[in-house]
Amino acid sequence: MGVREELRRRFGPRALLARAEKEVYRYDAILVGESPLAVVLPETREEVQALVRLARRYGLPLVPRGAGSGLSGGAVPEEGAIVVAFTRMTRLELFPEARTAWAEPGVTTARLSEAARPFGLFYPPDPASYRTSTLGGNLGENAGGPLCFKYGVTGDYVLEVEFVDAEGEVHRLDRRAYDLPGLLIGSEGTLGLLTGARLRLLPLPPHRATLMAAFPGVEPLAEAVSQAIALGAVPARMEFMDPACVNAVEDYLGMGLPRGEALLLVETDGEEREEVEAELALLQETALRFGARVRRAKDGAEAEALWRARRAVSPALGRIRPKRVNEDIAVPRSALPKVVAEIAELGRAFGLIVVQFGHIGDGNLHPNILFDPKRESEERVWELAHEIARVALKHGGVLSGEHGIGLMKRAFLAEALDGETLKALRAVKGALDPHGLFNPGKVLPP
Amino acid sequence: MGVREELRRRFGPRALLARAEKEVYRYDAILVGESPLAVVLPETREEVQALVRLARRYGLPLVPRGAGSGLSGGAVPEEGAIVVAFTRMTRLELFPEARTAWAEPGVTTARLSEAARPFGLFYPPDPASYRTSTLGGNLGENAGGPLCFKYGVTGDYVLEVEFVDAEGEVHRLDRRAYDLPGLLIGSEGTLGLLTGARLRLLPLPPHRATLMAAFPGVEPLAEAVSQAIALGAVPARMEFMDPACVNAVEDYLGMGLPRGEALLLVETDGEEREEVEAELALLQETALRFGARVRRAKDGAEAEALWRARRAVSPALGRIRPKRVNEDIAVPRSALPKVVAEIAELGRAFGLIVVQFGHIGDGNLHPNILFDPKRESEERVWELAHEIARVALKHGGVLSGEHGIGLMKRAFLAEALDGETLKALRAVKGALDPHGLFNPGKVLPP
Repeated sequence: MGVREELRRRFGPRALLARAEKEVYRYDAILVGESPLAVVLPETREEVQALVRLARRYGLPLVPRGAGSGLSGGAVPEEGAIVVAFTRMTRLELFPEARTAWAEPGVTTARLSEAARPFGLFYPPDPASYRTSTLGGNLGENAGGPLCFKYGVTGDYVLEVEFVDAEGEVHRLDRRAYDLPGLLIGSEGTLGLLTGARLRLLPLPPHRATLMAAFPGVEPLAEAVSQAIALGAVPARMEFMDPACVNAVEDYLGMGLPRGEALLLVETDGEEREEVEAELALLQETALRFGARVRRAKDGAEAEALWRARRAVSPALGRIRPKRVNEDIAVPRSALPKVVAEIAELGRAFGLIVVQFGHIGDGNLHPNILFDPKRESEERVWELAHEIARVALKHGGVLSGEHGIGLMKRAFLAEALDGETLKALRAVKGALDPHGLFNPGKVLPP
Repeated sequence: MGVREELRRRFGPRALLARAEKEVYRYDAILVGESPLAVVLPETREEVQALVRLARRYGLPLVPRGAGSGLSGGAVPEEGAIVVAFTRMTRLELFPEARTAWAEPGVTTARLSEAARPFGLFYPPDPASYRTSTLGGNLGENAGGPLCFKYGVTGDYVLEVEFVDAEGEVHRLDRRAYDLPGLLIGSEGTLGLLTGARLRLLPLPPHRATLMAAFPGVEPLAEAVSQAIALGAVPARMEFMDPACVNAVEDYLGMGLPRGEALLLVETDGEEREEVEAELALLQETALRFGARVRRAKDGAEAEALWRARRAVSPALGRIRPKRVNEDIAVPRSALPKVVAEIAELGRAFGLIVVQFGHIGDGNLHPNILFDPKRESEERVWELAHEIARVALKHGGVLSGEHGIGLMKRAFLAEALDGETLKALRAVKGALDPHGLFNPGKVLPP
């Protein structure tokens, strides 16, 4: 009996073997991989264990996957792999008194926050794709989001994980002794398969306020941000869009955004109205000092409209060129004005469209190269992507703020880390996945 | 040339070889180990590298050590080991604009916070020993402290680490890709030797307020805490002492604490006076509902006096019996009243003095068994310690809230984790320390 037959017997219609059915599992939100041998949709931990044992017997790699909304190719399969799609493992249990939840990997990020809201609680990590992205994917990539400047990233909210190892054994452990959960978080499924996690929830702040500031350019915007933070501001969200990005969103939504200007969006939150107002006032004054025009959202609906502009960036960019490379660098805040200028200059030099936006509060930038493979050389695009990564490293930055390394940035990782450090990472991979079963070709450079 | 001669040549007077000089390096704050072969006080990363290579050549284990204020035996040497005392590596560099600091492992916890204060910043992890404990030791044990309920533990503030591996190579890396820094944090020096860390600082909250509540017993105290937190309170610090502990501190300080009652100390902090007051009022009302008498500190000096009572617990207990076993369990808050009662009952059954205190906000309890080896059987004491650990596990708790596993709790770890999970932890240890060079006999059970 071959592997396809065995998968069919064990998983029935939840083993996808036909080409047409498997096609959609080749993609994440940024890259296209090879056609997998099969896609399996397990419903229980025991099925994940059975699948690991089966894959080992046949010497086939396993590629875990959530919603496929990742931006680094982490869930994109290689030829002949078995994709493990966790979208059917969606059990969610809330413990409001302990302010925790136990979630299976297929639970979407938004569902957790919605389930927590009636208890006055929320789950802070909020990747832009939070309506569709899964917690398993969030953990795999250690996802961030606008709120992470104040609240931290996914890993900061994980108390315990359950995972299936390369022998098919289940482990459930917290973060004492050796922090194995911490090692699995961000490892993109290359060290084991997550089958559950205990997550920490926070009390929902009762007050919030939003402000939009339009600057003549990115440089004064970055300076204002830097100064406001130095003065002690800790806004909940702090996002920026460069003029090219503002134009793209305005073309798309027609909501009256100021074309040709750099936009800063800020939200403050807190226990007391006074605190929220004082923090926003500090940001407002600083923005005015750097030549911005400022608009305060007068209520929740207006605030929501402003934030919709930020979330519309991805679809808006899709209308300019059919494809894009979405980078995810993080640089020291003090280097932001220089980094933004150098990247814009690189785009002009390469003759490619580059727009920039991101979580400016913690220096996490998303330079996007927009292109049409019919009109522009893909090789040139990747060359430019590589140059942009070098700008980040030159200014003391890192290659991945929140999207993970995946397939897309593993070659760059070889430049970011020295050979000895890579050896240590490989030793860890070898210890937990001695047969090279889990998501081969991701994270570590070839 | 033998190892002693080689150490003397390389490190001069910073290689301690005489018995009398080495004696003090056998202890931490709770256990006494064997006399080491030598104690070395490196001053640079390069010296740490040289020491690792030398130890490998001679096949001798290395035991890293900070101030020796640990409470789990993590820094206690085994026979013939070389102790690496990091107290001379004390370089500290502040980057106020980035809200970070780069610290060598010998910098004391208090010094970092003091250096940050003029910039309106602070470093939240505050183990009780923070005046003497070193950041290297804090990282090794992933130390917590009263502030950790609101602000998280040491690991939450580590952005980057530098460490020397088993080959004597230096690595410096942040927490992207595989979170190797996270793995080293809490590993008690068993995976590599930390030579530096980039730490995150927070803006110092301008307002704070303190409240003391005296309850007729631990049970209503635990209920009140549980309920206040369920209502949304996030105090900065929340500590409790059981009546035996209150009596001991009052005998020691004579400051008018209410004998025979259970004490709760709460501090709230924040950006706005109103927020701080509202949070304290919520806690006050809840405490009153559970029969407490409540006293608000009217100013900073009075608050400081109340917190001094908490910090006096350790010396106060030392006056009752010369030795103690200080446990560090963490249990779900809802289980607190039961756990405290069961542990008190166990103490009575064993005929040993047990006092309890700790960071009740996150369920982190420190049951202490006080004993005099001349009057009480040490074997019975450890039997009782083991039983207390079992109470924690039975109620869904863990064995180490913030002190680490060390030597003291590694046998208990075998009960807390299943064989397969231990195998995974051993695989990680084997990958990073293949020759068993680093702090053998710690963390992992025999």
